[in-house]
Amino acid sequence: MTALKPVPVPSFDERTPAPGAGQKRLAILGATGSIGRSCAQVIAGSPDRFAVASVASGRDGAALARAALALGADFAAVADPAGYADLKSGLSGSGVEAAAGADAVVEAALRPADLVVSAIVGAVGLAPTFAAISAGRAVALANKETLVCAGSLVMAAAQQAGARLLPMDSEHNAIFQALGGRDPASIVRMTITASGGPFRQWSAERIASATRAEALAHPKWAMGPKVTIDSASLMNKGLELIEAHHLFAVPAERLAVVVHPQSIVHGFIAFVDGSLIAGLASPDMRTPIAHCLAYPERVHSGAVAPDLASLASLTFENADLVKFPALALAISALAEGGGAPTALNAANEVAVAAFLDGRIAFGAIVGLVARTLEAMRAAAEISIPATVAQALAIHHIARDRTTGLLA
Amino acid sequence: MTALKPVPVPSFDERTPAPGAGQKRLAILGATGSIGRSCAQVIAGSPDRFAVASVASGRDGAALARAALALGADFAAVADPAGYADLKSGLSGSGVEAAAGADAVVEAALRPADLVVSAIVGAVGLAPTFAAISAGRAVALANKETLVCAGSLVMAAAQQAGARLLPMDSEHNAIFQALGGRDPASIVRMTITASGGPFRQWSAERIASATRAEALAHPKWAMGPKVTIDSASLMNKGLELIEAHHLFAVPAERLAVVVHPQSIVHGFIAFVDGSLIAGLASPDMRTPIAHCLAYPERVHSGAVAPDLASLASLTFENADLVKFPALALAISALAEGGGAPTALNAANEVAVAAFLDGRIAFGAIVGLVARTLEAMRAAAEISIPATVAQALAIHHIARDRTTGLLA
Repeated sequence: MTALKPVPVPSFDERTPAPGAGQKRLAILGATGSIGRSCAQVIAGSPDRFAVASVASGRDGAALARAALALGADFAAVADPAGYADLKSGLSGSGVEAAAGADAVVEAALRPADLVVSAIVGAVGLAPTFAAISAGRAVALANKETLVCAGSLVMAAAQQAGARLLPMDSEHNAIFQALGGRDPASIVRMTITASGGPFRQWSAERIASATRAEALAHPKWAMGPKVTIDSASLMNKGLELIEAHHLFAVPAERLAVVVHPQSIVHGFIAFVDGSLIAGLASPDMRTPIAHCLAYPERVHSGAVAPDLASLASLTFENADLVKFPALALAISALAEGGGAPTALNAANEVAVAAFLDGRIAFGAIVGLVARTLEAMRAAAEISIPATVAQALAIHHIARDRTTGLLA
Repeated sequence: MTALKPVPVPSFDERTPAPGAGQKRLAILGATGSIGRSCAQVIAGSPDRFAVASVASGRDGAALARAALALGADFAAVADPAGYADLKSGLSGSGVEAAAGADAVVEAALRPADLVVSAIVGAVGLAPTFAAISAGRAVALANKETLVCAGSLVMAAAQQAGARLLPMDSEHNAIFQALGGRDPASIVRMTITASGGPFRQWSAERIASATRAEALAHPKWAMGPKVTIDSASLMNKGLELIEAHHLFAVPAERLAVVVHPQSIVHGFIAFVDGSLIAGLASPDMRTPIAHCLAYPERVHSGAVAPDLASLASLTFENADLVKFPALALAISALAEGGGAPTALNAANEVAVAAFLDGRIAFGAIVGLVARTLEAMRAAAEISIPATVAQALAIHHIARDRTTGLLA
């Protein structure tokens, strides 16, 4: 359902300054979430640099209306039609166009803009992101599914359309900055760091029976519950390796994870000549967000670069694949390729939700994901997706399989 | 004195393969020193990538002849005419052209080449380096005097001639790689690391009376005695800040030194958005050398990138300007600008030589340099040099002043 406002949109919106020559127009998909709110902070810090053309979100119409007004957007789209009434009433009299439904979110992604921020959480974020990339738009990518579910398709579309992808999560952003446009051919190893999560120093036995509260107590980052659980199992690092493989065209065998509890070094690249370039930042999403929004220029983000002398010590240790089998499982899905990472991610979504609902133990998450992949392999359901629709079909089959295994 | 070989140089030298399309021609000034020998190792590891057009050195004709033959150079020039006989006899019958004198070294620098390696130690390296830069040649810079004595003139000449400068010492090379061509305007702070040298944990009193053997016992790097003493006093970090100021066009107040005893992180850059990019490598000169020789491509250097998980911990602390007053003095000379860094460096050369000769205490080095600068200021001898000749004149006046203060 796409609901267009009956009155014509004014070509100039008096609530925001006219975009100047150096002002970048943004489309923000996921404006009400954690990334969207941090985007708003960065934009507020440099109001002369950015103008917001459109905003979108998954469900919350009232919050989206507030975001649209605060950011001075011309168009606001909520994916879930149930959110339309709140969006419409929140924007009443503002002159901001309101719409709802999947097509409306795609429309928000395709409104004239210099950069599309893809920060809608989950598989619902894939279609609008793919549409923006296929249209040749520069995209700042925070939606994990875009690369995990359909990485090969997305990168091919980006290359064909000439769309630039800017990675917005801290690890890939650090690596993007460390790479600095260099040729991936001379890379010996590309490493993503993991804080190690709350269970870094726990035994495998204790981890297996960890409670919901224990798994949600992340030592470094404040994130949503799903991502926090993935950080405790290290599944998130596996998904990030899959993303890095696609984003940076680095083969799986040259990718690695190192545990770095301080979360200051987010990623690094070793080159054939012995050089190693590392990307660092305080654990504050405003830094990678500001980097993407302003790229190739830079703006103040409100976050300050880490002071290494004050930090005194940065420590590193190898990731323990026995204690954290989710990471090993993700690495093998990456090596398998095709639809395996898609299925892995979808099964993990269902398994983590089951853990958060108290239906399974923490230690059962990875087994459930592994059994889903086995069942799908046995049923020949893990094909190489040729379209985004096929990738999403594998995603939904995997979810159903995992749900079935839970019953 | 320039002694040209009487017989014509063959246009194709059968000892080396014909330079292929991807082969880079090098002129190596300082072929017999530590940097020159490491260059030879890197070249030997990628013989299809490099051809050596010319070599030069300061004094040792016999060693230069051996280097010329090993590298397959067509032309060899020794700066000190006293080395000519050894060079000539060492090259007898080889077909390699031998020459001596300052002009011959300039000729070596200007032989057709894709990259000039400037690694002759001391002020004698400045003129041929400046000649290569003024001729628009790409120059890999290991000679400290080029930027310390005449940084403004050198950078202006490089800009005018379109000459690319590649920094070859580990700190500036790390920063060059971390910068990756980005705009220096968005840099908040550029930091060079110091191992801290042998006296990092000593008291100021004990440092003042350190012996020659104690000062030469550097914990991380094997270098010549002059540089090792400068590493113990941290004067070398002051000189490196002066170089960084010119190389990267970063104002003095945005430059910093941090002590990092492991010597793995060599430099890093903090940007306005909170991003920090660091350049790391094992303490092995083959990495920055290979980086410069192959730039913008990369070759194997024989050195492997550091394994952070094996290193386990990297530590950082602020540099102590009270315990290491040479660093404070260099920072103030950088702030003063003009001929002050030139005079500082020259006075330090004489003072360090006096310490190595047992004539003064370690703690007297910095005082002698400071008194030289004071005497020169009082005599209005620290002008802003308008030519390299004027910079070298300030250099020699400072050396004479320091020598006079020692008498």
